[in-house]
Formats: sequence, C-alpha cells, structure tokens
Amino acid sequence: MINNISSFKQLEKKIKNNIFSKVFILCDSNTLKYCVPELFNQVPILTSSEIIEVNPGEESKSFEICLNIWTTFLEQTADKKTLLINLGGGVVCDLGAFCASLYKRGIQFVNIPTSMLAMIDAAIGGKNGINLTHFKNSLGTINQATSIIIHDLFLKTLPKIELKNGLVEAYKIALIADKLFWKKLTSNNLSVKQIIKKSISLKLKIVSEDPTEKGLRKILNFGHTIGHALESVFIKNEQKIMHGEAVYMGMIIETHISFQKKLISNIKFQDITKTLLSCLNFTLLKIELQKLKPYLLNDKKNFDHKIQMVLLKDYGKAGFDYAVSLNEIEEAIIYYNNIAIGK
Amino acid sequence: MINNISSFKQLEKKIKNNIFSKVFILCDSNTLKYCVPELFNQVPILTSSEIIEVNPGEESKSFEICLNIWTTFLEQTADKKTLLINLGGGVVCDLGAFCASLYKRGIQFVNIPTSMLAMIDAAIGGKNGINLTHFKNSLGTINQATSIIIHDLFLKTLPKIELKNGLVEAYKIALIADKLFWKKLTSNNLSVKQIIKKSISLKLKIVSEDPTEKGLRKILNFGHTIGHALESVFIKNEQKIMHGEAVYMGMIIETHISFQKKLISNIKFQDITKTLLSCLNFTLLKIELQKLKPYLLNDKKNFDHKIQMVLLKDYGKAGFDYAVSLNEIEEAIIYYNNIAIGK
Repeated sequence: MINNISSFKQLEKKIKNNIFSKVFILCDSNTLKYCVPELFNQVPILTSSEIIEVNPGEESKSFEICLNIWTTFLEQTADKKTLLINLGGGVVCDLGAFCASLYKRGIQFVNIPTSMLAMIDAAIGGKNGINLTHFKNSLGTINQATSIIIHDLFLKTLPKIELKNGLVEAYKIALIADKLFWKKLTSNNLSVKQIIKKSISLKLKIVSEDPTEKGLRKILNFGHTIGHALESVFIKNEQKIMHGEAVYMGMIIETHISFQKKLISNIKFQDITKTLLSCLNFTLLKIELQKLKPYLLNDKKNFDHKIQMVLLKDYGKAGFDYAVSLNEIEEAIIYYNNIAIGK
Repeated sequence: MINNISSFKQLEKKIKNNIFSKVFILCDSNTLKYCVPELFNQVPILTSSEIIEVNPGEESKSFEICLNIWTTFLEQTADKKTLLINLGGGVVCDLGAFCASLYKRGIQFVNIPTSMLAMIDAAIGGKNGINLTHFKNSLGTINQATSIIIHDLFLKTLPKIELKNGLVEAYKIALIADKLFWKKLTSNNLSVKQIIKKSISLKLKIVSEDPTEKGLRKILNFGHTIGHALESVFIKNEQKIMHGEAVYMGMIIETHISFQKKLISNIKFQDITKTLLSCLNFTLLKIELQKLKPYLLNDKKNFDHKIQMVLLKDYGKAGFDYAVSLNEIEEAIIYYNNIAIGK
C-alpha cells in the first residue's frame, strides 16, 4: 500500500539530519505571500532554503517555466541530493513534481498542497504533468513523492470558492468508489477534515492497486474526459474555468452517457444529477461539442482511435474503457445545455 | 533479471496482432537513408508507419526537437497505444525514449540501435535523456524499453571510426566488471558479435541489480565524469568529439586518479593506460580544467557539493562515490596532457 503521507516534524528531522544537499521551495505568488510564512513557522529551518516563484494558474504548467526552474537548479549547482518542496495547489504540485522527476533523472520532492483540490487529488498518487500548447497534461510521468504533508491550516488562506473547487473531487471519488461516503457527503454529515481524510484514503487505495494506471486507476478519471477538454478550451480564454468546475460539468455529462448506455437506471441518473446540481451548484457554462472535439480526440485514455470514458455503474461503482461515440457525447451535451439554460 | 532483448520477428508479430494503434519510426537523416530500408526488409508491415526525422548529432537532444516530436504526435492524434520505434544511434535512442516516456505519461517504445555504441550501451538499460543548454543529459528518466532489437546488419552501414567509438564502452565495461573479458578483448581474441553480446549481458546484469542507480549501477559511469564534461565543452564547438572518444580520454584521466588515491598499483595503472592507448589509439585532445569545471560541478553523480567519481580498484573491479578534488583532477590532466603532447 502506497502511503507517503507525512508531517512537518518528519520533514524537519530529515533536513536537520543533512539528508539533502540543498532545499528549494516552489511556490506561486499567492502561496509565497500566504503559505510560505506558515511553512516557516512550522519548519523554521526552511528559512534558509531557496525560493522559486511562478505565476499562479494553469499557464505556468508550460515548458518555458520548466526550463526556468531547471536553469535555476543548474545555476545553483543543485545535485542529485537536492530536495524540492512544492508548496501550492494543483498547478504547483504538478509542475514541481514534473521538474523534480526529470532533473538529473529524478531528485526527491515533497508535496505540501495548500488547496482543498490539491490535498484531495493533485498532490496524491504520483501523477505529474505539464500542458503542451493547450493540451492539458500531455506530458508527464508517474513518480511518487518522497512524502506529502497535509495540513488544513493552509485552507484558511483560501477564498471559499476554492473549497468548493476541491469538494468536486471528493464527490467524484465517493461516486466511483464508496456509496456510504457518497451518502454522508451529500447529506452534509461530514467536516472538511473528515472529507479530506476519507478522500485521500480512497485515492491511495486505488493508486496502490494500480500505480501505473494499467486498469483500475483509470476510474479516477470520471468526469475528466469532458472536464479536461473544457479546461483545454478555456486555457487561452479570458474567462477562466476552475478544474473542479470543469470536472463538475464533466460529471453531469458523463453521468448522462452512463444512463444512455444503460449502465445506470433512469432513477439513479436523475438522482445523481440532481444531487450534484444542488450540492455543488456551480454556474453551468454552455458547451459546444465542436470546440471540445480536438481535445476529446487527443484524450490520454483513448485507444483504438476511439474516445474512451469512465462511466458509472452504480453509486460508488464505476467502470473504465467504455468507447463513446461523438453522437453519444452530443446527446449528453444537449441534455446538459438544457439544464444550463434553465438555471 | 531485466532482459528485453527481442527480435524483428517478435516485433512483426506484435504489430500484426494490432497491439498498437499507430506506429512511428524516429530516425535521423543517416538512418533514414541507410537503415530504414533494411528495417522495411526485415519487417515489411512497417512501411505503413509514420516516419519522424531529426538531424544527426547531439544537438538534436534538445527541448525544441522534443516539442516538434510531441506536436507531431498530437497532430496525428497518437494515443496511449502508440508505439515509437527508435532507429538510430545513441542520440536517436536517448531522444526517442525520452519523448515516449513523457508523452501522455508514457507510451511503449522499441530501441533498434544502429551503431556499435548504441548496441552496447545507449539503447540498453532504460536511461534516456536530453541536454539542457549544453549540460549533457541533464533531463531524463529511467524507463525500460518495451524491447530492444540488436542486429549487426546495421553495422555495415557505418564508417569504421563509429565501430571504434562503440568499442570504448566495451573496454569500459570489461575494465569495471569482468577481468577475463578485459583480457580477451585487449588481446584481440573476440569477434564484433562476441564483443556486443558479452557487453550487453554484463550491462543488463548490472542494471538488473540496481535499475534506478541507487548504488552499483553507478560504476557504468567510469570515464564518464570527465567524458561528459568534455562532450559538454565540445557541444557548441566547431570541432566535434564523439562520445567514445570523450569517454576514452575520461578513462585515462580517471585511471590516473584511481592510482593517485592508491586504489590501484602503479604497475596496474601503467598497464591499463598503455593498453587503452595502444588498443583504441584515438588522437588525444589537449584538455583545460577551467573549461571542464562548470560541467564537473554539475555532474549528475555529485552530492554533498563534491565531485563524485567511479574509480578502478582492479582489472574488472570498480567502486563508486569517491569524492575527488579539483586538485586531483588537475594532476591527472597534467599527466594526460603530457601524453597528448608526446603523441
């Protein structure tokens, strides 16, 4: 079982024991302002480490930014025993893990997720990635972090919308993997701490069974085929979309496709959709299939020239490698757009 | 034991069984002309695959070239079941394996080395890499090829100097790992086929014991601390240096350091140096420590802010993680330059 969840104390101990020749902290301008001081409070020895700052947002997951980071490493003669601490949300964790995994064929890295989304999802499980032009996460590896430190003190620094953004992944993992968790979650019976803890343990269980995503792990992509395509469309847009928002819309559409393929009954489909809409309640953006199409056709899960999706089979149960036609996606988008207009 | 050595027949069978959704062949302009036709003869079904051509030489191991390759993949909607065949020398194998390992978090790849050097070394063992500015192999992963096909028919297409370039790695692996092989090799008792076979089996044995280079595998870097630094110096030079040539010079210098540190006796040091000089007999280029220094300080094996080298302990025996000072390197370079002038 992969379990690389750790603590500030253990990190401090390792650094004091001189395991690392140099320590860098990767952050964005927000986490530099709000989270670095908290981190220094927790692990004072880190005040002497080097800070690398990137702009917040998806556009930092680019090659140009990676080159800047690697050049900084080289200029500072960072060697194989260098540690990179990724302090931030999904973007910082994805980007930092990617840079660490390639530099000199891999240096150690610690993820300290500061957003709900990164705590529940991005920082856990070893996937990293950057975008190629606006094809999301087209490049990456699977490489487990040395350790991951989860602390809810960082959540206080976040706007409320970020909490909801992260909650989407909790809803997703409940829906694909744990009926009871889905019930508790949707009836508002859990604290934020409990939600984070349960979501992480479910994700780690799935990742441990299939770390390199040969099979089972694919179910974590529920909502993400449409979700990633939406994000790709919006990357260069003035109007921004959050990852959680995109996956939320993706889940509604992919639940409809699960129903079209008779994997779930009409009653379950209606109930799941209604629950998602009422519990998460993001504004639904109108979706055009034509704009999504190039990204759907390049989705990482595809094979045999077909779009492959994760679909629901029940509450807490999902299957993967379902070939889905553009017609089926179109039908689901029509259904979705009708709700969007109605809202 | 890692053993991914395969054959054209097995590759053909896999392709005929539709295991892959698309097949790309990466080559340089030389292998396009001389080796692709041979490959098509061996595996006729490959005539329908897509060819990606890069310029020959170390400068193709760059990010710009990777971006071109990945963009081609995206444009052709290459999915996770795509196969990349790397047909070429060390540059093509390193570059192709790197691109395949990152695209959509990893697609399958087959190495078909066409040079002696790549057959014996670069194509074997799962290391890939590209250069960052002129810091050699600063970025990469360790990821085993799906399979490797070794066939000496490609050697006929090569100029003689390329054979000698590859032989250096055979001398290296003999010197660090197999006294008997060293004896046979240096007394000219083996055919090219025998040399390739023995070198590959020695390398696979070492890699299997330590695939991620935590310890033992480091010995494969004998001659490479100086060798890589030399190559880095020459990357942007008009005068080119071959990998084998650089490692050859590196071995002479690092053998002297082994002697300085009293790891080998004066007699053994003299004998090894004399044997290398007489058997391989490359022109020795004059070396300046000042030019090597920035690259030595950024060598991938370094830690604790010290240059770490692999050094000889006997014929067929090497140790790793020896901290070496710039003074020691300078002394060895003075010795080496004296031979260079004398020759």
